[in-house]
Amino acid sequence: MIFASDNWSGAHPAVNAALARHSEGMASAYGSSDLDKAVEQRFNEIFEREVAVFFVGTGTAANSLALASVNRPGGVVLCHREAHIIEDECGAPEFFTHGARLAAVDGPDGRIDPANLRRELARFKPGHVHTGQPMAVSISQPGEAGTLYSADEIEAIASIAHGRDLTLHMDGARFANGLVATGLSPAEMSWKRGVDILSFGATKNGCWCAEAIVVFDPDKASQFPYIRKRGAQLFSKTRFVAAQFMAYFEGGLWLDMAGHANRMAGLLREALDKSNAARQAWPTASNEVFAVLPKDLAARMREAGAVFYDWNAPHSMPELTSEDETLARLVTSWSTTQADVEGFAAFLR
Amino acid sequence: MIFASDNWSGAHPAVNAALARHSEGMASAYGSSDLDKAVEQRFNEIFEREVAVFFVGTGTAANSLALASVNRPGGVVLCHREAHIIEDECGAPEFFTHGARLAAVDGPDGRIDPANLRRELARFKPGHVHTGQPMAVSISQPGEAGTLYSADEIEAIASIAHGRDLTLHMDGARFANGLVATGLSPAEMSWKRGVDILSFGATKNGCWCAEAIVVFDPDKASQFPYIRKRGAQLFSKTRFVAAQFMAYFEGGLWLDMAGHANRMAGLLREALDKSNAARQAWPTASNEVFAVLPKDLAARMREAGAVFYDWNAPHSMPELTSEDETLARLVTSWSTTQADVEGFAAFLR
Amino acid sequence: MIFASDNWSGAHPAVNAALARHSEGMASAYGSSDLDKAVEQRFNEIFEREVAVFFVGTGTAANSLALASVNRPGGVVLCHREAHIIEDECGAPEFFTHGARLAAVDGPDGRIDPANLRRELARFKPGHVHTGQPMAVSISQPGEAGTLYSADEIEAIASIAHGRDLTLHMDGARFANGLVATGLSPAEMSWKRGVDILSFGATKNGCWCAEAIVVFDPDKASQFPYIRKRGAQLFSKTRFVAAQFMAYFEGGLWLDMAGHANRMAGLLREALDKSNAARQAWPTASNEVFAVLPKDLAARMREAGAVFYDWNAPHSMPELTSEDETLARLVTSWSTTQADVEGFAAFLR
Amino acid sequence: MIFASDNWSGAHPAVNAALARHSEGMASAYGSSDLDKAVEQRFNEIFEREVAVFFVGTGTAANSLALASVNRPGGVVLCHREAHIIEDECGAPEFFTHGARLAAVDGPDGRIDPANLRRELARFKPGHVHTGQPMAVSISQPGEAGTLYSADEIEAIASIAHGRDLTLHMDGARFANGLVATGLSPAEMSWKRGVDILSFGATKNGCWCAEAIVVFDPDKASQFPYIRKRGAQLFSKTRFVAAQFMAYFEGGLWLDMAGHANRMAGLLREALDKSNAARQAWPTASNEVFAVLPKDLAARMREAGAVFYDWNAPHSMPELTSEDETLARLVTSWSTTQADVEGFAAFLR
Repeated sequence: MIFASDNWSGAHPAVNAALARHSEGMASAYGSSDLDKAVEQRFNEIFEREVAVFFVGTGTAANSLALASVNRPGGVVLCHREAHIIEDECGAPEFFTHGARLAAVDGPDGRIDPANLRRELARFKPGHVHTGQPMAVSISQPGEAGTLYSADEIEAIASIAHGRDLTLHMDGARFANGLVATGLSPAEMSWKRGVDILSFGATKNGCWCAEAIVVFDPDKASQFPYIRKRGAQLFSKTRFVAAQFMAYFEGGLWLDMAGHANRMAGLLREALDKSNAARQAWPTASNEVFAVLPKDLAARMREAGAVFYDWNAPHSMPELTSEDETLARLVTSWSTTQADVEGFAAFLR
Repeated sequence: MIFASDNWSGAHPAVNAALARHSEGMASAYGSSDLDKAVEQRFNEIFEREVAVFFVGTGTAANSLALASVNRPGGVVLCHREAHIIEDECGAPEFFTHGARLAAVDGPDGRIDPANLRRELARFKPGHVHTGQPMAVSISQPGEAGTLYSADEIEAIASIAHGRDLTLHMDGARFANGLVATGLSPAEMSWKRGVDILSFGATKNGCWCAEAIVVFDPDKASQFPYIRKRGAQLFSKTRFVAAQFMAYFEGGLWLDMAGHANRMAGLLREALDKSNAARQAWPTASNEVFAVLPKDLAARMREAGAVFYDWNAPHSMPELTSEDETLARLVTSWSTTQADVEGFAAFLR
Repeated sequence: MIFASDNWSGAHPAVNAALARHSEGMASAYGSSDLDKAVEQRFNEIFEREVAVFFVGTGTAANSLALASVNRPGGVVLCHREAHIIEDECGAPEFFTHGARLAAVDGPDGRIDPANLRRELARFKPGHVHTGQPMAVSISQPGEAGTLYSADEIEAIASIAHGRDLTLHMDGARFANGLVATGLSPAEMSWKRGVDILSFGATKNGCWCAEAIVVFDPDKASQFPYIRKRGAQLFSKTRFVAAQFMAYFEGGLWLDMAGHANRMAGLLREALDKSNAARQAWPTASNEVFAVLPKDLAARMREAGAVFYDWNAPHSMPELTSEDETLARLVTSWSTTQADVEGFAAFLR
Repeated sequence: MIFASDNWSGAHPAVNAALARHSEGMASAYGSSDLDKAVEQRFNEIFEREVAVFFVGTGTAANSLALASVNRPGGVVLCHREAHIIEDECGAPEFFTHGARLAAVDGPDGRIDPANLRRELARFKPGHVHTGQPMAVSISQPGEAGTLYSADEIEAIASIAHGRDLTLHMDGARFANGLVATGLSPAEMSWKRGVDILSFGATKNGCWCAEAIVVFDPDKASQFPYIRKRGAQLFSKTRFVAAQFMAYFEGGLWLDMAGHANRMAGLLREALDKSNAARQAWPTASNEVFAVLPKDLAARMREAGAVFYDWNAPHSMPELTSEDETLARLVTSWSTTQADVEGFAAFLR
């Protein structure tokens, strides 16, 4: 009954097999091996266009270097008030951008409200040096709150961003889960709707350590190799990342794993909706579920071996829980078993 | 005949086996799993004392975060003029330290000359704000030039550093090769002789991606978890690093692999010493060899499949090569074969 | 009728006289002249204790270096959502702290609400590396919205900050105006109520360029000289700052000038309160007034030579102005004339 | 007998008079006043072309922001091994550039040797990410060692820099002294010979605090306003800098003051050349003189009130002084008197 995070899961056997297969012999280092190039070509196919791809080691690195690559002096990134880049990366985006500010945009369910985005942007008068200059809008798909933007909603935000000459960045740490949940193609969930740069995560979904930054206009990535190396994210044996991605994409494994995780989350949602003791805090899709649990129930679950984190309530829901309740985040993964979910559900009944 | 770099080698089968073994089931993320802790304990045993260990993804990260953790405002790190941290990390140490300066100390063979170190340090008057303030001395063992410090030489440098209240950092990207070459124990080659913080590399020597920062006085590491996370180097599934280290240390595999690499380099040195066509540029130990090759010979070797890099001559040897010669760096690894070495040697005859 | 900002005013004749008086002869540079030391002694007297004082050139420098001096890796500064350090310094605090985050705390009138401060702080669990670590709370006195904290309110915030081992920083760009408005002594408005570090501004109030950082516990300032020099804020001829401060404090000139500015602002407030056409946006004290003006009236005033800025509405007052209205900020200074104020008032009738 | 530094001098009476004259009334802040614009126009005239000018507060700020404005990720600035930006700015250039490295180029008398510059640049292969990427060459005119480049020598260095697409920066903290010493026009000593960006100093030569960054191609300065504001160097009452510059240029005052300083230095050089007890360490021009003094003579001079600094010997002259000697730096200024020089000379006889 471990729902702490999808990064508590290990790696899929196919990923390990690929590592073993590619571990022999010499290969050019620092991203120039044949395998690296083959995987780059896979990204082109998956996104239906030529892209520039850069492997890095962590999702935090992907987000931070992506934003660093579009930085401006006095730069400001507009993102949701509870975005992962604000709440969970220990200031890495600010560090790698030499102090760009993450300006919080309010929104009800972990998603940026376009009207609020417009209002925040209006606070920055072009050429007014004191406020700093917006440089990007960053959204997460799925977001930290387990919710998703529709393709049209992505496009609406992109339109606002591009109207101010801002880059639209997408944090896709759970990109595959988002694809399955929305039914969109990778291209439709990104560049076809205006996303300029994507943090593409595979670690949470069955890899060991495989993250990539995808720049949809390769001409804009000329400085990226230096940004990555200076940021200590250029692995020498990059084929170990490439091998993971190769297995990840092979035969649609990535979507199968994400589909499983999403289904397991769906079962948790059903169990919560049927429960008299607990409830969903807000509706989610993908592989995250937020539950309001009575504190004594949560304690009993944990005694029985359940693992999940208490979560900070969104700023927009200050009255979400009563004194006797806790907000719990439940995350499923490719390796979550139906038995685990059923064990948890039994407590809710 | 690939002598480009030891990071062109892959991973040892035992490393892959460990990854496969530990890939199942859930485990606590971000460095808190049982496996992570077991490996930390292994480090204590290897270094014969309690140490603080932090896994990171690249050698550049290890060096940069190590120096960041002992940073002072206006900080200066004294290191050899051709140190890896100066010449090959794209400014990462400066970036992660918010602009600490790497002050070059001259020395004849890639090693800091203690007299020069004293002279450089004397340029910094305590409390004189304009020059900045020294914060660390950094040495490499083995160094970028394939040379090594004896235990007494390490101690001599440590004594100068500590006399000015400076941290002594050791870049041990090839620490195992250094141990084998010197015959010293890990403790003797580090803290027992005054090293305060060590970049411990395993990637070049048979792992995929396994680097660690070892802080010998754990009390000084209290801020390190934040420095690492902010630096985007906290992996979520850290057990994948831990599993590699577990296999690496098991049964002395690390020293066996380093020993093999060093022996292969020794054969290259012998072949050069016997050659009429080429020569060693300077004497080295461990697994790096520097050769002065006639340019036409180098070209013929490359046509035959040899891979090696031309190297910048040290500042101290401006007349090293004639117009018709090139300085070549040859690196061996755990997976270099005797056949490769013999093929190369045949060209030298 | 210039109410654009108090930094549109020039320098008081006494300040110029002091500059002329001290311009002759040689004097030790970089803060070590007799005049520098005499002014430092004046600060001790004014604050009724020994303090460490550092002159800098701009208010932005004072705030940024003050926060840099208490920085922690992954550091977070809690401040009001519309604080000057967030809205008007082009990211300088983030830049000088290498990316510390300014976490916005909501509050109704430009002042931090202690309950909200507690709630925001509770989002940071001690030792939880992902969120970063709070390092300071920053308040402005008077604040960007023209409002003031009482001594008890300062103490309440200090108590929350110190309870989490955080520094309390006060942005005192208009410190003298705050003293006059509250009737507090310098000591009572700062360290006696828990302020640890103060940005002390004189530029807006009759000097050319005279700002100081006051560290109330001098033992905590040992690294500050390096932080200031590295930040390019160590003037060589510091006696030019010292001379300004000397004149500023002489005979209470600073309080006289601030008193005049505050009185002029009071007259503006009275005129607004009597007006049928316009109104105060919210009650202020000190030398800032916020007015809701009909747009056509604002246009007519500007045609007649009035200068003032349109201002962004606070996040807490989204419905402050109608379509036909604008929010105007009016600032008075030591050189604002009663005739100016009356000219403006005439338009309001 | 104060030869400590030209920044020990005060301000010229004409500078104070200008400050007093412009201190009345309101004026637009942050560089937009009529006076600011008039001074910008004066810069255009002095340099015989349209330039972009940005006032800052210190020479360190000028150098650091100038380099920050041409920064590249992993950037490297090539400069003389004893350049002021390396030795005397506490790491500010590295800090403001987020860690660009200052790569030392050797040269015999404080001046970059073009052959060494070419050799250092050759160490950076285009596109080789590990070494970082050169971004600028920085020279000082006059240099830290009191020496000067001829116009042809500037052009030779510019040609090397531009051949690698690097910016040529000139640290002109003593630009006026250089003009007088070389007899060149401002344009000939800068952009006509290839300088792209200039730190233009006036503080040492009769002002209080007046430094400017001159960008010769204004199109390249579009981001500079943000870089300056984020760097806390945008003064609110910029007219106080402008007023100083106005007086500085009026009637050629700047060149008169520099000429006086240079003449006084010439007298010191003469006295040293005639002395049996002491000698010039190397030939200089402009207003700096380096003397090898017997330690006991230096002590007697200091007892008699002489003030000067002991100086670190250049790396290229390790045997400059014997055990009984010290290297002394002597600097003259606009306010140095002939009596002071003669007093000093008397000791040398």
